[in-house]
Amino acid sequence: MTTRHLTEGRHGHQPERSVRLSQTDAHGYRDWLRTGDATVLLPAGAFEQHGPHLPLGTDAILSSTIAEAVARRIGALVAEPLSYGYKSQQKSGGGNHLPGTVSLDAATVIGTTRCLVSSLLSQGVRNVVIVNGHYENYQFLYEGIDLALGDLGLGPDGDQSVLLLSYWDYVSEQTLEAVYPDGFPGWDIEHGGVLETSLMMHLHPHLVDPERFVDHPPASLPRFDRLPVVPERTPASGCLSAPRGSDAAKGRLMFEQVVTDLSAEIATETGLLSSVPEAVLRVS
Amino acid sequence: MTTRHLTEGRHGHQPERSVRLSQTDAHGYRDWLRTGDATVLLPAGAFEQHGPHLPLGTDAILSSTIAEAVARRIGALVAEPLSYGYKSQQKSGGGNHLPGTVSLDAATVIGTTRCLVSSLLSQGVRNVVIVNGHYENYQFLYEGIDLALGDLGLGPDGDQSVLLLSYWDYVSEQTLEAVYPDGFPGWDIEHGGVLETSLMMHLHPHLVDPERFVDHPPASLPRFDRLPVVPERTPASGCLSAPRGSDAAKGRLMFEQVVTDLSAEIATETGLLSSVPEAVLRVS
Amino acid sequence: MTTRHLTEGRHGHQPERSVRLSQTDAHGYRDWLRTGDATVLLPAGAFEQHGPHLPLGTDAILSSTIAEAVARRIGALVAEPLSYGYKSQQKSGGGNHLPGTVSLDAATVIGTTRCLVSSLLSQGVRNVVIVNGHYENYQFLYEGIDLALGDLGLGPDGDQSVLLLSYWDYVSEQTLEAVYPDGFPGWDIEHGGVLETSLMMHLHPHLVDPERFVDHPPASLPRFDRLPVVPERTPASGCLSAPRGSDAAKGRLMFEQVVTDLSAEIATETGLLSSVPEAVLRVS
Amino acid sequence: MTTRHLTEGRHGHQPERSVRLSQTDAHGYRDWLRTGDATVLLPAGAFEQHGPHLPLGTDAILSSTIAEAVARRIGALVAEPLSYGYKSQQKSGGGNHLPGTVSLDAATVIGTTRCLVSSLLSQGVRNVVIVNGHYENYQFLYEGIDLALGDLGLGPDGDQSVLLLSYWDYVSEQTLEAVYPDGFPGWDIEHGGVLETSLMMHLHPHLVDPERFVDHPPASLPRFDRLPVVPERTPASGCLSAPRGSDAAKGRLMFEQVVTDLSAEIATETGLLSSVPEAVLRVS
Amino acid sequence: MTTRHLTEGRHGHQPERSVRLSQTDAHGYRDWLRTGDATVLLPAGAFEQHGPHLPLGTDAILSSTIAEAVARRIGALVAEPLSYGYKSQQKSGGGNHLPGTVSLDAATVIGTTRCLVSSLLSQGVRNVVIVNGHYENYQFLYEGIDLALGDLGLGPDGDQSVLLLSYWDYVSEQTLEAVYPDGFPGWDIEHGGVLETSLMMHLHPHLVDPERFVDHPPASLPRFDRLPVVPERTPASGCLSAPRGSDAAKGRLMFEQVVTDLSAEIATETGLLSSVPEAVLRVS
Amino acid sequence: MTTRHLTEGRHGHQPERSVRLSQTDAHGYRDWLRTGDATVLLPAGAFEQHGPHLPLGTDAILSSTIAEAVARRIGALVAEPLSYGYKSQQKSGGGNHLPGTVSLDAATVIGTTRCLVSSLLSQGVRNVVIVNGHYENYQFLYEGIDLALGDLGLGPDGDQSVLLLSYWDYVSEQTLEAVYPDGFPGWDIEHGGVLETSLMMHLHPHLVDPERFVDHPPASLPRFDRLPVVPERTPASGCLSAPRGSDAAKGRLMFEQVVTDLSAEIATETGLLSSVPEAVLRVS
Repeated sequence: MTTRHLTEGRHGHQPERSVRLSQTDAHGYRDWLRTGDATVLLPAGAFEQHGPHLPLGTDAILSSTIAEAVARRIGALVAEPLSYGYKSQQKSGGGNHLPGTVSLDAATVIGTTRCLVSSLLSQGVRNVVIVNGHYENYQFLYEGIDLALGDLGLGPDGDQSVLLLSYWDYVSEQTLEAVYPDGFPGWDIEHGGVLETSLMMHLHPHLVDPERFVDHPPASLPRFDRLPVVPERTPASGCLSAPRGSDAAKGRLMFEQVVTDLSAEIATETGLLSSVPEAVLRVS
Repeated sequence: MTTRHLTEGRHGHQPERSVRLSQTDAHGYRDWLRTGDATVLLPAGAFEQHGPHLPLGTDAILSSTIAEAVARRIGALVAEPLSYGYKSQQKSGGGNHLPGTVSLDAATVIGTTRCLVSSLLSQGVRNVVIVNGHYENYQFLYEGIDLALGDLGLGPDGDQSVLLLSYWDYVSEQTLEAVYPDGFPGWDIEHGGVLETSLMMHLHPHLVDPERFVDHPPASLPRFDRLPVVPERTPASGCLSAPRGSDAAKGRLMFEQVVTDLSAEIATETGLLSSVPEAVLRVS
Repeated sequence: MTTRHLTEGRHGHQPERSVRLSQTDAHGYRDWLRTGDATVLLPAGAFEQHGPHLPLGTDAILSSTIAEAVARRIGALVAEPLSYGYKSQQKSGGGNHLPGTVSLDAATVIGTTRCLVSSLLSQGVRNVVIVNGHYENYQFLYEGIDLALGDLGLGPDGDQSVLLLSYWDYVSEQTLEAVYPDGFPGWDIEHGGVLETSLMMHLHPHLVDPERFVDHPPASLPRFDRLPVVPERTPASGCLSAPRGSDAAKGRLMFEQVVTDLSAEIATETGLLSSVPEAVLRVS
Repeated sequence: MTTRHLTEGRHGHQPERSVRLSQTDAHGYRDWLRTGDATVLLPAGAFEQHGPHLPLGTDAILSSTIAEAVARRIGALVAEPLSYGYKSQQKSGGGNHLPGTVSLDAATVIGTTRCLVSSLLSQGVRNVVIVNGHYENYQFLYEGIDLALGDLGLGPDGDQSVLLLSYWDYVSEQTLEAVYPDGFPGWDIEHGGVLETSLMMHLHPHLVDPERFVDHPPASLPRFDRLPVVPERTPASGCLSAPRGSDAAKGRLMFEQVVTDLSAEIATETGLLSSVPEAVLRVS
Repeated sequence: MTTRHLTEGRHGHQPERSVRLSQTDAHGYRDWLRTGDATVLLPAGAFEQHGPHLPLGTDAILSSTIAEAVARRIGALVAEPLSYGYKSQQKSGGGNHLPGTVSLDAATVIGTTRCLVSSLLSQGVRNVVIVNGHYENYQFLYEGIDLALGDLGLGPDGDQSVLLLSYWDYVSEQTLEAVYPDGFPGWDIEHGGVLETSLMMHLHPHLVDPERFVDHPPASLPRFDRLPVVPERTPASGCLSAPRGSDAAKGRLMFEQVVTDLSAEIATETGLLSSVPEAVLRVS
Repeated sequence: MTTRHLTEGRHGHQPERSVRLSQTDAHGYRDWLRTGDATVLLPAGAFEQHGPHLPLGTDAILSSTIAEAVARRIGALVAEPLSYGYKSQQKSGGGNHLPGTVSLDAATVIGTTRCLVSSLLSQGVRNVVIVNGHYENYQFLYEGIDLALGDLGLGPDGDQSVLLLSYWDYVSEQTLEAVYPDGFPGWDIEHGGVLETSLMMHLHPHLVDPERFVDHPPASLPRFDRLPVVPERTPASGCLSAPRGSDAAKGRLMFEQVVTDLSAEIATETGLLSSVPEAVLRVS
């Protein structure tokens, strides 16, 4: 058979293989499902202010880019990202009141996840891996998965699974030490800070504006959440820690390490061979 | 003022101005909102089989591309598309049972629309324009808008509005005659047919595989919907009409005409000047 | 056995056989279900302004009357209509802001449909046919059916089905030409116009007031929906096209043709014999 | 002014004035709303087995007929009934498992009530009176009303109100003694019994079949509800008490007394004059 | 085996056996489930004003205390009570507008019940008995149970069941005559009156303040519910009938009789032996 | 004024002042609200297996006990706890599949929180503080709060607030070092471990069974969540880390430190004086 994948060359004559499921055709996809081994990565992001130097789509852009790199290594495909996420919270994202933050409520994040996981699994996808890039999403993604499995009646005895993870949980101690030589300030205030900025500088440099890096001490937020928020507790920049010290080399270090570890862990968990399904990915 | 837009050059040294809101930074966006004239286009698509020659993401790709072109003309920005849509129906999309079709239920499409419209309007966006590219979505998008307006307490006396439209309603009679010299078979079976295929050939040729064009008579479907579907009523290709006769020139003709008319109608309705907000769109 | 149907004579001494399920007794109904061939028609309408000459209940009245006529021909019974429908939209019904329009939201139309379809099918009804008389309802009825089938776990292999249709889709080209000798203006603005008015004049003349027919050009509405609506876009009468030219003869023509074609199509699809189940329908 | 009401004569040449809102036209309705005194009665029923001698629609038929009679006395109009109700419970209706019982779940009854009450009040109806005829509905109707008032922000200081009642609560002690000379068995088992049967014999004799009256002792049900039900606890007839002893005279007695008291209480509560709004009700 | 129950002695050196499930450990609970005979009582209450002499938690306190006494007799355990209930209604609880009344809406009561019943039954609990102490809850508890059974696919043929009851339905005629020598005023206005006050005086005397007993005639409420409420219809005390005449002896009489009858009825219905599972309840 | 609080003496003749809102009477509560300074603490827990040595109710017991101690210091009252929580997750609680774990879904936790917060704030409570004791709850509590504030239209300019916190976030570094001399293993696996066990040994020794302490290495769980869970990844005990090394002294140390810091932080944030409102708390 000659199933083919429809791929758009981003750079003209030298088309790169795409791992985006949205660019696959239905017949190729169907054939892939029949292998019984299809793994689909679903990136989850947000539409959220990230200070003056990063774009609003940062969370979805990063989780998508990481998912695509992992997919290439393990022979998976990447579904369209969840471009909108749960409400930004002040302690992890500055707050939902800030311009540029366009959010979904819990019911919608849960419902979207439930529908997508249910659709994919019922069509024969063996493993769905949700790669989260927006802290606030996590529990709602979890609930959506759990409800979908209930809908389908899937329990531990089957051979289908859903994995849920946030990519920063794969940054190793060693990498952290290299990226934060003066000590890691904690994931909670890593919003618009060195992690995200460096990753974007490595992966999407045109979307970062280093001239607009702010420099201020990390936000000092209480241990509780207060609602309605006290707006002044978020730095005026919208960043919870400053991007100062970010560079593409740090981004590359983190990216390579995370993609390597994440790929290995998913492959081990799902029993995926790392061989790419050539037929599906073959370009014109 | 020195607000700047973060733009990724797709072709290297000659960066094109991006109109994607996800690539704007929060501070530039905030300044734009303050003009009181911000219009945001929200493309709505689907993840749906489109036969062997078109990609699964066709509906979102087309509505996004059209929205971007309109945005350039009228000085608007484009939010990330709704990449997943309501369940494919047999009479307009072949049916939700087909592999490759990954759908949301009504509550999720309504909820997503409600949250996004509400978020955008409450931040000060003046007009939201939903550009739909998947027939089945329409009524659920409508309900989401209506609920959002209720949430915000917005009535006819305000100066904020939401427009909802499907792009094919802007194909003129004259264009139809040119594209379908043997007679227009009707929008209902234009799934995977000449309209979508020609548009894709013009706009994203790498994502179309003309060698896999099927050729079969248009689907003949009853006037009722039957559930559960009788699968055999959908042609094996998944297309409701054949793409035979599609070409990039037809796609260009439709695209230019639709973008022109759509831009004009939105500009008139919203009172938008067609001048581009340079500050927001300026590239690095 | 002597199961009997409880029938109210509308005209006193000459009782007509009733096909309304609400007038059947539970024991007769149970016996009918046991035949394995029970088909129930469920009319869906609305409570919506229809100008000064037609009653608020027009949509439910027409879909009910048509359903009853079809039921007589194919040996089915008619459940109580959905008397309230989804929000009136400006482009098809004048808008939900108009006095006299009392509407349900999407969740309620979906939920009602889901419950009723699920109840009927799980009791052993073989075919449920929803006869829609209010344009705005369609997609929400569809979702309700789809969810009910999911609840029951019914797929294509079973022998139960649900059909969904709008009665005007059964008006033939030939009939249209006879009713609109000057050209058919399109279903979208057929609200309070010649179709509905003529049908009502034929079927329920006492509910029509010809002295109050308005005469104005058809409404000219944009290709988009705008919310909040611009109220002035709806003609002051509330009709999207004028009833001028309506008469009972046209109503009779349409009614007879639609009922004939609809009955034939349903009978063919469901394999129903057209014999009436005498035992169930026998009057006292 | 010449607003007119569209009325269907049920008996041919001698048309009776209709108090059904669905038969009013939108312009007449609008004028009536402008009086500031409009009261709408909304009957709530069910679709529920009522033994072999009563029709499935009994609950909606009775609440509608009573509402119409009250409306004539107090100058109100009657909206289309809720023809389907909450699940039949074994202790008050025999149980939801019985053929012929087609029910809505709680969310749907609540949602329907919420939408209708909200629609009517926001259009300017001053008082909505829900006349319940199905025991199981009551609390869900209540919740729907409460949510609607919350949506509209209506509190005790306004002059709009919603009344909720079950018609049997208006049967007086004196009437009970006359109808049940051997002692009243209690409302809980009055399902398919003397109350409903006698009322139907008075009001809709063609819908009752006295030859099929069962005769068995009243159902003896425990003080708890058990789910899943033990089906044998419901008498095979589906009636919780036997209709023996029912007759039209008892029905007439109850009907007249209930309508009189109900009309008086509503009129007092709402300050309604009992004068009929002639313009609205004038027949052709 | 030596599974043990973790019990807190309320009075120091003489620990009483606890029947609260929350004080059991998971391993003991698991062993108990394996007997196949586990019955769990779930008390349902409210957080509702009860006049000046009774605490806000009265309904949950009473249903919990009764459930614990029943559990001791029949060898069951008691889950944590539903401490919050459905909105207080004026005719049975004074109304939801009164300070101290903190309520849940219908969807939440239904959802909570559905989750708990589903959790308990799916883990292997054989019978769940909901002991209701707040009139307004009943129908929402019922719906939650019904939905849970639907989720689990449990029908009449299985051996698991859920019982739902309100404890006052077990007060016998004889007891009523003893407690209300001047005639029983009816359950509807028994809010803050002799029943609840006497029970609390017997069971929790420290939580009752007899010096603050009000004395006023029973509330005289119409047969309808009106929303928004007319606040003046509720006596200023918040009690619908006065606690005058309450005493601990009456409380004891009612308590003993109700617990006895309730225990007997549950044991008969569920086939429970009244032997206590010693291993589970053994204290340290 | 002579408002009084109804307090149950736990130890007989020497009644302790109760800070439980459920034991307050409505009139005293109303007077307290009128001070404009009322702060209510709402403990959130779960019903979840905690190994063989701790009771199922541990999370609610601990958050309630801590909330009561804080309330005594800052002059607040404590509402009845949320005794049931969101589904136990394998990485933080062992998993929802384990016997003894009785959970709510997301919608129910959100809805309950929304209703309670809305009820309390709309009655005039100035500050609501949710003291969480079950990790999995946090985001759903947050959403419930956010929705309630939206319902009430409360924004940053008002003087009402809701605080949300988990009590373990108040364990200081210094305390951690004292409690875990060999190094703190991390909150994620502190389920049934030294923190909870020691706190229970200090606060509720009768509910802990030291003879059943398990001893095993901490659970080693992957960085992702997998659903359906792989049951073997949870230690057979149900504890994610062993309770070995727990003692009442450590519990006391943690309890005192957390209560002190939490009280100070809440008092500072809300501007509460630490004086106890004597009138409300006065015992009989």
